[in-house]
Amino acid sequence: MINMINNNENKGKKLQVILASASPRRKELLMQIGIDYRAVPGTAEEYTTKTEPAEVVQELSYRKAEEVLAGLVRQGEEDCLVIGADTVVSHRGRVMGKPGSEEAACQMLSCLQGSIHQVYTGVTLLVREKGQQSVCHTFYEKTDVSMYPMTEEEIRAYAATGESMDKAGAYAIQGRCAVYIRGICGDYNNVVGLPVGRLYQELKSLGVLECI
Amino acid sequence: MINMINNNENKGKKLQVILASASPRRKELLMQIGIDYRAVPGTAEEYTTKTEPAEVVQELSYRKAEEVLAGLVRQGEEDCLVIGADTVVSHRGRVMGKPGSEEAACQMLSCLQGSIHQVYTGVTLLVREKGQQSVCHTFYEKTDVSMYPMTEEEIRAYAATGESMDKAGAYAIQGRCAVYIRGICGDYNNVVGLPVGRLYQELKSLGVLECI
Repeated sequence: MINMINNNENKGKKLQVILASASPRRKELLMQIGIDYRAVPGTAEEYTTKTEPAEVVQELSYRKAEEVLAGLVRQGEEDCLVIGADTVVSHRGRVMGKPGSEEAACQMLSCLQGSIHQVYTGVTLLVREKGQQSVCHTFYEKTDVSMYPMTEEEIRAYAATGESMDKAGAYAIQGRCAVYIRGICGDYNNVVGLPVGRLYQELKSLGVLECI
Repeated sequence: MINMINNNENKGKKLQVILASASPRRKELLMQIGIDYRAVPGTAEEYTTKTEPAEVVQELSYRKAEEVLAGLVRQGEEDCLVIGADTVVSHRGRVMGKPGSEEAACQMLSCLQGSIHQVYTGVTLLVREKGQQSVCHTFYEKTDVSMYPMTEEEIRAYAATGESMDKAGAYAIQGRCAVYIRGICGDYNNVVGLPVGRLYQELKSLGVLECI
């Protein structure tokens, strides 16, 4: 189990980990690495002032974390670490979010098949200790993903599984789409939705990890 | 669901898929991609005449598949596709299998932390159609894995989780060890134990895939 602790005045006091996301993949990843958390998804509509994928995901991860922290503080909940994250796919300069329909999913997959694209996940960590200013730390990870060519029939059959619908770029690397992935360069979990390797290293640098 | 079919005389007849392995990770990966299989692990002791990791895993994958197919044929079971696989870790010319003890796991992790190593999985596909010669196809995939530095305390704590014991190189990329993985180059599932992307493409080339 990985615990988070205060490192300021109330040194040693446990920090509650709040995942500002409803994504089942992000929840599974935190469980996989042994972080005990509570999921508190935000409700605000996502909007971004940026165009570069690395900036888009960092801004959106910050907005998600900030909205959720503000809600907690209003309810008097402090001594917490809020994790916000956002993932997009970028292909030849075009940023792809989640497809709005099965048809849109097929179009995205037609672009991605047989080539290399980038997956960006931005993460914001907001550490709030009682009576202190929040500490904010934002970063992103980029992973290159190379896909095998897919026939039209394969694209339609994959989109029909329904796996595409809530995923940036219309595919789940951890699902059926695994058969169309030639390889990646970077963190696999970044493609799933949360770069847990980098996350752990950043938590270590922030000095909030109690033990592994 | 992905089905396998005969493509010779009894064209269209379904082939039974046999996984010649007891590995729970390989079973999960076949389930993930929708292949209906039966696991029939071999019992022969593993031995290799090779020293190069790519040759070691190919030879061992062949021996596993061959032993299991021979058993099936003796029992009159034909019309099947047998999948054998073997995974090793290679670090600076040294091939690592599974650790024999927690102490051996700590030693392996001490070597691997803070550097890049290679994971090789060899796969053999044996297609046996009634009254025909078996068709044999063997290949391997290599993935580079880069690990963050680990402290001695982290190594001991990780080895104490017990995750190391039945894994080549003493770690599970899909488990707690994810926090120590900086990134990979190649197929992630190859590190888990079965390169399902390449496997699917090879099955397609062999002409035994019915549909996706």
